[in-house]
Order: sequence, then C-alpha cells, then structure tokens
Amino acid sequence: MKLTMNGKILDRRAVWVEGGVVKIIDQRYIPHEIRIFEANTVEDVAFAIKEMVVRGAPSIGATAAYGMAVAQANGVEISQASELLRKTRPTAHDLFYAIDYMIGELSKGKDAFQAAEIYATDIINKCRRIGEFGEKLIKNGARVLTHCNAGALATLDIGTALAPIRFAFQNNKNIFVFVDETRPRLQGARLTAWELDQEGIDYAIIADNAAGYFMKKGEIDLVIVGADRIAKNGDVANKIGTYEKAVLAHENSLPFYVAAPMTTIDLNINRGEDIPVEKRAEDEVLTIEAQRVTPKNARARNPAFDITPARYITKIITERGVHLPQDIAKLPRIE
Amino acid sequence: MKLTMNGKILDRRAVWVEGGVVKIIDQRYIPHEIRIFEANTVEDVAFAIKEMVVRGAPSIGATAAYGMAVAQANGVEISQASELLRKTRPTAHDLFYAIDYMIGELSKGKDAFQAAEIYATDIINKCRRIGEFGEKLIKNGARVLTHCNAGALATLDIGTALAPIRFAFQNNKNIFVFVDETRPRLQGARLTAWELDQEGIDYAIIADNAAGYFMKKGEIDLVIVGADRIAKNGDVANKIGTYEKAVLAHENSLPFYVAAPMTTIDLNINRGEDIPVEKRAEDEVLTIEAQRVTPKNARARNPAFDITPARYITKIITERGVHLPQDIAKLPRIE
Repeated sequence: MKLTMNGKILDRRAVWVEGGVVKIIDQRYIPHEIRIFEANTVEDVAFAIKEMVVRGAPSIGATAAYGMAVAQANGVEISQASELLRKTRPTAHDLFYAIDYMIGELSKGKDAFQAAEIYATDIINKCRRIGEFGEKLIKNGARVLTHCNAGALATLDIGTALAPIRFAFQNNKNIFVFVDETRPRLQGARLTAWELDQEGIDYAIIADNAAGYFMKKGEIDLVIVGADRIAKNGDVANKIGTYEKAVLAHENSLPFYVAAPMTTIDLNINRGEDIPVEKRAEDEVLTIEAQRVTPKNARARNPAFDITPARYITKIITERGVHLPQDIAKLPRIE
Repeated sequence: MKLTMNGKILDRRAVWVEGGVVKIIDQRYIPHEIRIFEANTVEDVAFAIKEMVVRGAPSIGATAAYGMAVAQANGVEISQASELLRKTRPTAHDLFYAIDYMIGELSKGKDAFQAAEIYATDIINKCRRIGEFGEKLIKNGARVLTHCNAGALATLDIGTALAPIRFAFQNNKNIFVFVDETRPRLQGARLTAWELDQEGIDYAIIADNAAGYFMKKGEIDLVIVGADRIAKNGDVANKIGTYEKAVLAHENSLPFYVAAPMTTIDLNINRGEDIPVEKRAEDEVLTIEAQRVTPKNARARNPAFDITPARYITKIITERGVHLPQDIAKLPRIE
C-alpha cells in the first residue's frame, strides 16, 4: 500500500519481517502518526493481535503465522505458541486457519519464516483476485458504502472490501465512497479514510447513524464490507454494525457484497449463530480517543462483531469468483 | 428533573426565567459539568438554540417562547425577533409552533413572560400525560432501547421518550434501558445516560452499531424515541439514526414507539420527504470532544435528522393517547 513517511511515498505491507523481527504498522496511531511496532517474541505478537496494533482478519492471520515462526526461532514449543496465539481474539477465522497451516508446514519440516512468507504473499494474491472480480460489480459513477476497515491495513495490502474500490479507481472509474466511521473504535474514520486519502479516492465520512439516511435518499448504489468468519450456510460475522447496514441495504433494494478470501470460511460452523462473538472492554464505548464522554458510573455493552444472515447478502466475492452466499460451502477447496 | 448540584439534589427545569433572564442548563457540558447559560437578549437565545446549548424539540420551543418575551422586554420588534429565532434550526416543528403561539398571544395583548410560562408549563403537563399513557406499554422486566435524548433536558422536564420509562420505574417495574450513544453529538451517551443516572434507572450505553445486534439476540423488547416533526401521514423526523433503528425493529418484529406532544405534528406537511432536514458542520463528525480523529483533509457529511416512514412506527404516544401513525392528523385539535 502507499505510505507517505517523512515526505517519501513508500510501498509497504501492513506487516512484514525484517531480520527475524515482525514489524507492524501500528494501527492504533493512524491517521495521526505512522509508528512501526516491533515484535521480537511470540508474546509480543500475541499482544499486538489482542490490543489491535494489527487488526483485520487476513492481517491477523498473517501476523499469527509470523508469530509461529518467531516462536520457533526463539525455541518456544510450537504447541505453547499456538495456544497463546489462539487465545488472542475469538472471532476471526483466519487466525485459527493460519496457526493450523503453520503447524502443518512445520510438521513437514518446512522453514518457518518461508512458510509464513508464502502465507502472506498468498493473501495479497487473493486480495488482487478479489479486486479483479469485484471491480466488475462497480459501475462508473458508483457511490459505494463501506463499513469498518477491510483495506490494505486489514489484509497486508490491497484489501478485501477496498480491493474492488481500488481497482475501479485505477481503471479510471469515477467513484465516491461513503465511509461509516464505525464506532466504537472508528476504524472507518481513522483507517479507511486514511487509506482512501493515500490513494486519492474521493470519500466522505459519515456517522454510522447516517448510512440509512443516504440509502433512502438514493445516494448510495451498493455496499461492500469484509468478513471475519463465514459459516457454511453463508452467514457472515463482521464488525459490529454490519448487520444493521445489511438490513438497511435489503430494505432499500441495494446490493450488499461481502469480500473475503476463502480462508474466512469455516466449514466447521453451520450457522452464523454458532460463531463466537468477542465482547470487548466497556471503555471502548465509554471513552473516545482516551477521553471519557459518559457519566462517571456509566456502564456499557460492547460486542465487537455481529452476524449478518445470508439472506441479506447479495453475493460473496472471493479469490475464486462471485458467489451466492448459499453456494459458498459447496465450492471445491483448493488449498 | 433531579439535578445534583454542589452535593444538593435540586428539582429543576432545563430552561426557566429568573429576573427577566432566560436560564438554561448548558447541555454542551453535561455530564462533565453543570453550567447555567444566561440569555439576556433574543440574540443570546438564538445563539443558545443554534449552538445547542439547549436542544430537543419541546425545549427549543419553550426557549423560543421565552426569547420572544425577552425581545419584547428589550423593545425589539416582534417581527424581527421572530425572524431571528426562526432561522436558528430548521427541523423541529415546536420552534415554529412556539413562535406563532407567542405572536398570537402578544397580538391579543397578553403579558409575554406569562404567556411563555403557560407554554412551558403546558409542555410539562403534556409530557406527564405521555408518561401515563406510555407507561402502560412497558411491561415489568422490559428492556427498552432509546435513541438520542428525548428526556427532561429535551422537554424542560420529564421527557417524551423517557417519560414512560420514568413512570414505569416509579411504578416499581423492573426495567433496563439500552442507550444508543447517538453519534455524532453523543446525546445518548452524554445526556440520556446522565438523566438515567440521576434517577437511578439501570442502563447500558451501546454504540449505535450494536442496536441491531441486541435486537436480533432477543435482548430488546421495545424501542421508544422522540420526534422533531411529524407529517400528516405519520412520517416522523427525528435524530439521525432513528430510521435505521425503526427498520431494524420492524425486521425483528419489535414495537417501535414515537413519543411526542401534539405540537410536533405539522399539518402543513403531507409527507416526511417534505420535512427540511438540517445539515450540520462536518466537524461534528470529524472531531469528537474537540479532538480530531480523522485524516487532516478528510471530508464528512452530517445530516442531523432522518425521516422514518409511518409504516415502521407501531404507535405514536401523545398527551391525547396512543395512536396509529396514520390517525395522527385526524385527531381533533384542542389548542
């Protein structure tokens, strides 16, 4: 992804390895500052995932793969490392997929850093394919709503939901993006806006409350979001608020697309209701940018994800093509 | 309403007159501080409405009525004062209703402060009736979602949407309130939470994105909101995000109630689409509590209200009873 650092435009992934150290663009400081977080141990990597130094299902998966490599290099037991990483966050399927992939590769005697690198490069190739397939769904002049950040930061590069948008823009289509700010953590206002800014794509940030208003006014043509986990029946777990936008798109007869690599599909989960939804700290709601906004004794509830039933989803875009949600589990697996 | 100031529990209205000065609980500083804004001129009153020192349709109406009285006392032309006040905010019907009421009373030679006082007391009596009618719709054990602040701050005392909740609590019903934080201005997180806190009513603040999640999980039993203007066909203008919650309630087969005094109904407006929706400053979205959260050049769009079509509204609760939205314009007017 494009990254302006000290006045220079660089091409960087969200996460990479340099001299055995996992380097991560620290998403907690964007857009105010570009800081690189350095993880020297698997504990550092676990911290980075848990505290959302890095977030977005595919980026979490890649970071966990690198974490397994760092663990091996440091002589940490593979079972111990994988257990530690599995406990960081419960919803994104890619995390578990990546850990299982690394255990498999290591058991075959493969080089750990090389295996992780293959995993990472593979994600980016998948995002490119998602961009190519998804781009065809975006007409010239389209006004697209997206929720949270399913961009380069969330997927090492290119993005899932943002991939079709990037490709449409590169193909000189005239597009406009409505960016849900995405409370409580403001990934839309902070991260997606920043990525679109870097690319020069035209956008406006809106309060999450305003998405329905613009749909009803006929100012939004389609919605694209990412996914953290997809059940066999096509139900999708994604950032809290996705379900609301999907219902509103359905009510306003707008196409609602989910963009995600096949690794997001969990064939062990039959229905969305069975996907574990992470509950995060109340303080994410009660404070904003470290400032308390609510009464002193106020309580909050803070589910980080929600489940969008397949019936609200028009199509799921993967590296394999554009599918009806109910067909997603039937696709032959090529791993 | 209950107000703890300097350790003492006081009973105060949101707006009142003392020695010819309009005194307003400054809603910009709640819950952090209780400051009283003093308006000595009609210009001060216009500022207070425009800058949301006071907000909420019924409170805006009463403040405008007091503003007309202050104008007369200061020798300002009534036509000039009314023009100034009419320009402050475009959506709430009560503003225009209150100004017209005052012009009528003044033309009859009535005492201006007395006429405004009658208007203010009338609002509170209506809220009490709304509370009595609405309370019957709340069962013991109910979990209620509300959006924005339609409480005592918004209506001088008691509230519209919060009136049935207050009365249910006072009648020893066990209730729980989900409070939408209500971005961009956080009236839920700041004002509604503060009011519930003062009363000792159990609640949790949620991100606006999470309302759908809790509805779908079966953790919300009903929704009650206020209104800024109601069209003849029963369509309702209210705080941005109301439409989203109404669609979600409908999709989840939950009752969606609008509580508002009859003065909110605008018989000159046939359909919701004809109600003017205020667009407010981009900075309300781009910054939170005066901190910039978005990239430097980011743009935003910020409609302050949306329109909820009558078909999503179960009942409208007024001081006259509980009505189907399509019946609202047929009620005989007693003014």
